[in-house]
Amino acid sequence: MLKRYLPILQWLPHYNRHAMVDDTLAAFVVTLMVIPQALAYALLAGLPAVVGLYASILPLVVYTLFGTSRTLAIGPMALISLMTAAALSKVAPQGSDAYIEAAITLTLMVGILLTLMGALRLGFFANFLSHPVISGLLSASGVLIAASQLANIAGLPGSGFTLTTQLANIWHHLDQLHPLTLAIGVVSLILLLAIRRSRPLLERIGLSAIWAQFSVKMGPILVVGISTWLCWVCDFAAQGLDVVGDIPSRLPPLGIPSTDGEVWQSLLVPALMISVVGFIESVALAQMLAAKRRESISPNQELIGLGTANIASALSSGMPVIGSLSRTMVNFDAGARTPAAGALAGLGVALVTLFLTPLIKYLPIATLAAIIIASSIPLIDIATIRRTWRYSRSDSSAMGATIVLTLLEGVELGIMAGVTLSIALFLYRTSRPHSALVGRLPGTEHFRNIDRHEVESARHLALLRIDESLYFANARYLEDTVYDLVAKHPDIEHVVLICSAVNLIDASALESLEAINNRLDDSRVTLHLAEVKGPVMDKLKSSDLLDHLTGRVFLSTYDAWRTLH
Amino acid sequence: MLKRYLPILQWLPHYNRHAMVDDTLAAFVVTLMVIPQALAYALLAGLPAVVGLYASILPLVVYTLFGTSRTLAIGPMALISLMTAAALSKVAPQGSDAYIEAAITLTLMVGILLTLMGALRLGFFANFLSHPVISGLLSASGVLIAASQLANIAGLPGSGFTLTTQLANIWHHLDQLHPLTLAIGVVSLILLLAIRRSRPLLERIGLSAIWAQFSVKMGPILVVGISTWLCWVCDFAAQGLDVVGDIPSRLPPLGIPSTDGEVWQSLLVPALMISVVGFIESVALAQMLAAKRRESISPNQELIGLGTANIASALSSGMPVIGSLSRTMVNFDAGARTPAAGALAGLGVALVTLFLTPLIKYLPIATLAAIIIASSIPLIDIATIRRTWRYSRSDSSAMGATIVLTLLEGVELGIMAGVTLSIALFLYRTSRPHSALVGRLPGTEHFRNIDRHEVESARHLALLRIDESLYFANARYLEDTVYDLVAKHPDIEHVVLICSAVNLIDASALESLEAINNRLDDSRVTLHLAEVKGPVMDKLKSSDLLDHLTGRVFLSTYDAWRTLH
Repeated sequence: MLKRYLPILQWLPHYNRHAMVDDTLAAFVVTLMVIPQALAYALLAGLPAVVGLYASILPLVVYTLFGTSRTLAIGPMALISLMTAAALSKVAPQGSDAYIEAAITLTLMVGILLTLMGALRLGFFANFLSHPVISGLLSASGVLIAASQLANIAGLPGSGFTLTTQLANIWHHLDQLHPLTLAIGVVSLILLLAIRRSRPLLERIGLSAIWAQFSVKMGPILVVGISTWLCWVCDFAAQGLDVVGDIPSRLPPLGIPSTDGEVWQSLLVPALMISVVGFIESVALAQMLAAKRRESISPNQELIGLGTANIASALSSGMPVIGSLSRTMVNFDAGARTPAAGALAGLGVALVTLFLTPLIKYLPIATLAAIIIASSIPLIDIATIRRTWRYSRSDSSAMGATIVLTLLEGVELGIMAGVTLSIALFLYRTSRPHSALVGRLPGTEHFRNIDRHEVESARHLALLRIDESLYFANARYLEDTVYDLVAKHPDIEHVVLICSAVNLIDASALESLEAINNRLDDSRVTLHLAEVKGPVMDKLKSSDLLDHLTGRVFLSTYDAWRTLH
Repeated sequence: MLKRYLPILQWLPHYNRHAMVDDTLAAFVVTLMVIPQALAYALLAGLPAVVGLYASILPLVVYTLFGTSRTLAIGPMALISLMTAAALSKVAPQGSDAYIEAAITLTLMVGILLTLMGALRLGFFANFLSHPVISGLLSASGVLIAASQLANIAGLPGSGFTLTTQLANIWHHLDQLHPLTLAIGVVSLILLLAIRRSRPLLERIGLSAIWAQFSVKMGPILVVGISTWLCWVCDFAAQGLDVVGDIPSRLPPLGIPSTDGEVWQSLLVPALMISVVGFIESVALAQMLAAKRRESISPNQELIGLGTANIASALSSGMPVIGSLSRTMVNFDAGARTPAAGALAGLGVALVTLFLTPLIKYLPIATLAAIIIASSIPLIDIATIRRTWRYSRSDSSAMGATIVLTLLEGVELGIMAGVTLSIALFLYRTSRPHSALVGRLPGTEHFRNIDRHEVESARHLALLRIDESLYFANARYLEDTVYDLVAKHPDIEHVVLICSAVNLIDASALESLEAINNRLDDSRVTLHLAEVKGPVMDKLKSSDLLDHLTGRVFLSTYDAWRTLH
């Protein structure tokens, strides 16, 4: 019991020096990579850069206690930071103390919601965000995230959370464009993209595969170093370049965030959205990596792990954190063996915060913006959009609605539209079920659609396969289908409903079956059932239908064929 | 085309004297029965009694032009009147001119909504109100309607639209109880219930079946006659008995209702609810009777028929009208042959309104309340509640939620809760699909659940039948099911997914199948598919899955068994 809620007890007793060496190495690499990312995502959320560091210390330690994934590395993440900024912009102006206070409150709410969802075992709710919706959301948010940083990279003020406001903002302030900022930003971006593609080149000049990969991952910290040094040497800040500025060299202040009821109320929906999106992203990532190593994770315990990490982030002045794809991959590739690697990386970030913050005083904001843009480009996944379009119009319309609404109205409305539409389309589809008249494949006991296969059939016998569970939304449609069939084929004496695809007959459908039975009886047609599954049959036995049924219930379609043919 | 939108053109050319005689007779009987009902339902809606008559004139004529049912008799109906009163109580106090004005606006909105839904062919939306939800709604509204008239029958003021407010209201005003009113009300109620049960007695004393039935149906008008006469003779009105009072002897004033934007806005949701409930009740009734006579109706044209009837009602100072069960049955039993019977009944009510209203000046309100209570009792359908409970816990929980919320929070919330819960339960059920390992019934080509039947199976071959369409909500569950299966049975070399019950594989499930295929491949297990249906196979062919699949796609489970066994 204790082990279930404190997964650390499962691995800590077996922890040894060998694992510790691996974990420490991975933690070192992750720390190096976290720093530019944490600063950048804090900027994206409209918060002081140091908040990103604060969110990468205590939450990592707490996740080590409660999380079930051995490799998931948590921290701020692009989409969540964008959603955070959008939520906070409704309650306070960016840059104000109230904004920072609200960010901490939001983080606490996310933590409480996630923990509650875990305690109530509501992990399955995440299943209702379909693949196309998530994929559309990520692609659209990639565009939004990149667009949100266009202003920063050009030295323009402010921004918005929909594509139209972002572009309008840039258009209106175009006269304030700062050439030096733009130059630093664009060069940083080009460098970042070049380093990302440099792996084959590095391997060709003699680096081993591991070192080549490591060098590529360290691209952002290299660009941060160069641009900071350049800015310091040339005193670009005096020429109007925005830089990170002074950061207090101390650990995050601990404390309980404000509890203004009105702020809580207006942050509730965004907190719920951030929780659900964060959970889905984290679990998908954790499951993928667990599968690679034949380990397993528990989604509901994962909710508790993420929830407590966010509560820890709120108590230490941080921002919302979730499992981050890029740092998790680094952690995994660098050979992390246990969740201890996470706690050690937290320790690393703490040391950086304590001793190295003076070094990043001259880090240009435009460089951080370039890092964000470079990391948002891979989110735009045209291949998946194209594949989904080819596979299914209905899936891609849910995806399209998510993309369009996310771009034009923001992430929350995009998610809601996508989820609602995918559920509505599923219900619509099941409300008009496919059905097929089947006949016997000659010489076999197998029956297939008479329109698609060369099969034997009989004029007086209609074998109708219903390809859907029967429930309220399609009960009337079933009636119409059967009545149409009988009206069109006056020779029919027996109708056999083949229920191999019927997984459920609810009370509404039961009424419809009774109605069909009575009405066919009036026309001297007998109604039979075949291949009714165990669970469905159990239910039918508790109703009156089987007593009134004019025909029989056959175990297989072949039985019905032999008896009635 | 014209015939489709004006169904009257289908039957009027063949109209003859014979049909006219039948229709006139039915219209006469319906007129007699409509009068007490129309007055009572206007009272239930909080409107002057005469509005009920107004709503039974022009709408009937218009429905004759646009409706497709040959026997549906429309007019005010108990549940709709209750919903009307609840909606209007939010915008104006009962008895005010604004209240009457709002009633007309609401009627116009209902008419426009229904017509629009018909023009847009949205009739299928009604399918999402499941049988248990409708049945729960009717039972609960029966209780609410009866409770709403307890105050009128006892001469107490006011009332409410939830059971708690209604009972609290009676409790608070119990000291104002008017014994004479109560006596008249209770005696009327007892008389009504006695007459309703008197048919066997009447037949025993020599009446023919038809006359006995006719006498029973005329019970309300008899009670109205007696109590009005008694009240006139004894001048009960002077002793404080509430009576209908003076009604102007003229046809309804024609006119376009007010269009105050705010009133429209606050009536929109109730108007939508009234439209949907009214449509479902009418169509269910019309379909049932059409089936009895081997005729057919068109749900979407029926929406237009009801919509235009409500617009006509609004233009002639009426209230919302729909197909009414009691008068439709009377119309049907009295032998109506064409929709002309409806127009003739409208003419009858017009004549009554013009010449006979002085007769009902002394009609006691308590008698009308007794008529409403008597007509609401049959709505409470304990047998269906019990049958649903026996058949399905999940259907009955949707029904229970509808009943409880309707009683405690009103009809609108009851409907919304019922619909939401039935959809949520369906989604939840499909998100955890039943699946079964199957084996071969010896000597046949038929495969059934190894836990339920005596079947042959093989250790290295898992035949897994998935009993649900595969879509986003259950894609991950499918993955877990297959991984669990392989983890528990290390001997397995082949997994065959039997897709006879899979009617759909959406993009999310496709990703899961790819993941399963790859992961099984890592464990040296081959994945096969069997009995994939035509429409599903067409889709799979447009994806990459079949190229990557480690195993084969078998036409039948038996093919897979023969090949892999």
